[in-house]
Amino acid sequence: MAKKDVISIRDFSKKEIEDMLKLAEKIDSMAEEKRLKLLAGKKLATLFFEPSTRTRLSFESAMQGLGGSVIGFADANTSSTQKGESLKDTVRTVEKYCDVIAMRHSLEGAARAAAESVSIPVINGGDGANQHPTQTFLDMYTILKLKKKIDGLVIGFAGDLKFGRTVHSLALALSHFNVKLYFISPDSLKMPQEFLDEIKERGTNYIETENLAETIPELDILYATRIQKERFYDLAEYERVRGFYRINKKLMESAKPELKVMHPLPRIDEIDYELDNTPYAVYFEQLANGIPVRQALLCRVLGVL
Amino acid sequence: MAKKDVISIRDFSKKEIEDMLKLAEKIDSMAEEKRLKLLAGKKLATLFFEPSTRTRLSFESAMQGLGGSVIGFADANTSSTQKGESLKDTVRTVEKYCDVIAMRHSLEGAARAAAESVSIPVINGGDGANQHPTQTFLDMYTILKLKKKIDGLVIGFAGDLKFGRTVHSLALALSHFNVKLYFISPDSLKMPQEFLDEIKERGTNYIETENLAETIPELDILYATRIQKERFYDLAEYERVRGFYRINKKLMESAKPELKVMHPLPRIDEIDYELDNTPYAVYFEQLANGIPVRQALLCRVLGVL
Amino acid sequence: MAKKDVISIRDFSKKEIEDMLKLAEKIDSMAEEKRLKLLAGKKLATLFFEPSTRTRLSFESAMQGLGGSVIGFADANTSSTQKGESLKDTVRTVEKYCDVIAMRHSLEGAARAAAESVSIPVINGGDGANQHPTQTFLDMYTILKLKKKIDGLVIGFAGDLKFGRTVHSLALALSHFNVKLYFISPDSLKMPQEFLDEIKERGTNYIETENLAETIPELDILYATRIQKERFYDLAEYERVRGFYRINKKLMESAKPELKVMHPLPRIDEIDYELDNTPYAVYFEQLANGIPVRQALLCRVLGVL
Repeated sequence: MAKKDVISIRDFSKKEIEDMLKLAEKIDSMAEEKRLKLLAGKKLATLFFEPSTRTRLSFESAMQGLGGSVIGFADANTSSTQKGESLKDTVRTVEKYCDVIAMRHSLEGAARAAAESVSIPVINGGDGANQHPTQTFLDMYTILKLKKKIDGLVIGFAGDLKFGRTVHSLALALSHFNVKLYFISPDSLKMPQEFLDEIKERGTNYIETENLAETIPELDILYATRIQKERFYDLAEYERVRGFYRINKKLMESAKPELKVMHPLPRIDEIDYELDNTPYAVYFEQLANGIPVRQALLCRVLGVL
Repeated sequence: MAKKDVISIRDFSKKEIEDMLKLAEKIDSMAEEKRLKLLAGKKLATLFFEPSTRTRLSFESAMQGLGGSVIGFADANTSSTQKGESLKDTVRTVEKYCDVIAMRHSLEGAARAAAESVSIPVINGGDGANQHPTQTFLDMYTILKLKKKIDGLVIGFAGDLKFGRTVHSLALALSHFNVKLYFISPDSLKMPQEFLDEIKERGTNYIETENLAETIPELDILYATRIQKERFYDLAEYERVRGFYRINKKLMESAKPELKVMHPLPRIDEIDYELDNTPYAVYFEQLANGIPVRQALLCRVLGVL
Repeated sequence: MAKKDVISIRDFSKKEIEDMLKLAEKIDSMAEEKRLKLLAGKKLATLFFEPSTRTRLSFESAMQGLGGSVIGFADANTSSTQKGESLKDTVRTVEKYCDVIAMRHSLEGAARAAAESVSIPVINGGDGANQHPTQTFLDMYTILKLKKKIDGLVIGFAGDLKFGRTVHSLALALSHFNVKLYFISPDSLKMPQEFLDEIKERGTNYIETENLAETIPELDILYATRIQKERFYDLAEYERVRGFYRINKKLMESAKPELKVMHPLPRIDEIDYELDNTPYAVYFEQLANGIPVRQALLCRVLGVL
């Protein structure tokens, strides 16, 4: 039997995605005492070659909430890579100290390469602008929890659709279902053609537009993303496109009352603080869902439940 | 009921301070097996935007000694703040992953702002030159443990009284009691007037002086502090005032035999190593007291005991 | 009774080395459930003034596998040493928060100085080019596990024998036994005379040579080391000597079939990846042995088992 990794949302069928969301729901409603025994004695290594508060702490909290323990590094400067060690050797080393690896790396394909080098499960916590599948599972879980269904929804993505890996992965996952998608971005940050082709192939309808205000009334879910400064080579272009869309109370005036605004966080100024205390804002609830979802993924790859 | 935070010693009445010291004593004398169950399954996040070995490791050791677990960062460079995220969003994120936050930040007021942003308890591990309340509790606990009382003591503070947050907080806490205080410093590092006013208002007698040697014979407790290089804009001034006072065996010749010398550590050269093995030196015992005191604070804010 | 430290392999008699290897074997074959109780409630502090993935994560995994918990830092920048604190004060501080210290430092003698400053056990995880005794124990354990004996073996060391502390320590440990040693290196990276003298004194035969290919047929064990860039002052000299020896399949043609190639890792290009899947390569098995060996050392210094 092949070992289980979580590298790309592309590796999961519709059925597997649905099963994972059910498992997350099961863990979410489990008594703490029972949950704390699920991975007792197991060790997670969090290898963050690229820093991330959110994803790293979420994995660590998830693992500890299952009774397991955590080793790792938050910064490539404290790892052996600075002595010139290859990624392959680093993960083959860490493999001897733990039961499962969660990693983030700045290079696309790094998580896949790592997974192919070791015999324990690897979970991708983000590889460059490529994939971030655990984010996608928690996004799907959030939508399902809020809307009780995915089929039939109209979902808009706004912001940086070119470099935003969370958008790429979520759009792919949603295209398994009967949804309508809007891709709302400035021309320089459009959704890459390869993803559009893949979505279309699965028979999912989508519309590309630059106009957020006109699209708002159509949407059940608005998924906003940060314009990521660190992905730009040209800072002048960054300054031009940032804040292209400001999501605030005024914009919500034309929205459906049950519209939910999601964001993978961190935000800079895409979403006004004034929106935080409205029923539209679900982004902090969304990130809280990262715990049961990552717990489900950890259990699944370790063969528990 | 309002949630419990530990932000400033000013927020605690005399009664509340006394109760906390009693709780620390209770935990200090508890059997390990019992103590290890107090916070089992609970998670502490240590958010150190400004590095600190002492305070961070003390919190982590305290939490683990109560059976709880720890997530966090030791360095703002590995956190999302480098992506431009606001402190408010960072703590609202971390809130979803843990039960209580302990934080250190270089900006005054940061801990209060954080506490107001989240619904879980926040413990201030130092905000700029402002407050460091857990240090104050452990200082009070140390004095009480050594002297069996606080009323009637004569306590001198020597060194950097301008920027030394531990001095500010401890002097305020002591002013609830019937003590006499000496503030001993060069003119450029005098105790700020606002603190002196507050102490006076509570009816506490104090004397300001530059002369450590003449004051020594009066004291029951000498609380020395480091001249903190990182608080100086002008390094020449730093070089001038450092080592203004050297606390050594010779200085102790005129002291009461039962004088105790405290220091929040780290020290540079304020206290000679030769003093370490004399009965005067209690600074390492003082920092060991950080464990039961922080355990008491953790239990209190989490509603345990 | 003197407290137990692990500072230098020189501090251990032949009998003590053998006992430690037996203890490691016992722990290695112990049921997980039983092992997880050995150090429950105990705390290890990992103080890495100099970064290291391998040694730090190995200690942390070992401690967690015994049911204990871990505090510490991976980087001197997040410690109080940047405030000018002495090593002595740092370890005397950390001593109050934990039961045992494992540390790495760039300065030779740092671990010994630390051990003499505190009353809890200190384990040296590497001090400059000096000692790395836990590596030596795991190297010895690996040889014994693979060859079922140490007496009678022919063991070659190749690479940087001048700065390679793992070589120095292992050669000393082996010289307690009836072995024959080859030291294979370019002239500028020869084994220091002091170590050769010490080995000779114990009656151990050794041969120095520059020629790896000619020596290979003699060997039961080839212990290769990385040319450590960070130990060179002159980068031109580094470029000249690196890759002096490439260990690959071709070189193995003249080897005994049961030759085992060890390496403390990380490697750069001393050993070709093509060797990894041959029976010669045991370096990843070797590092996995770090867990039971470090568990044995932790138990021993804490007086358990």
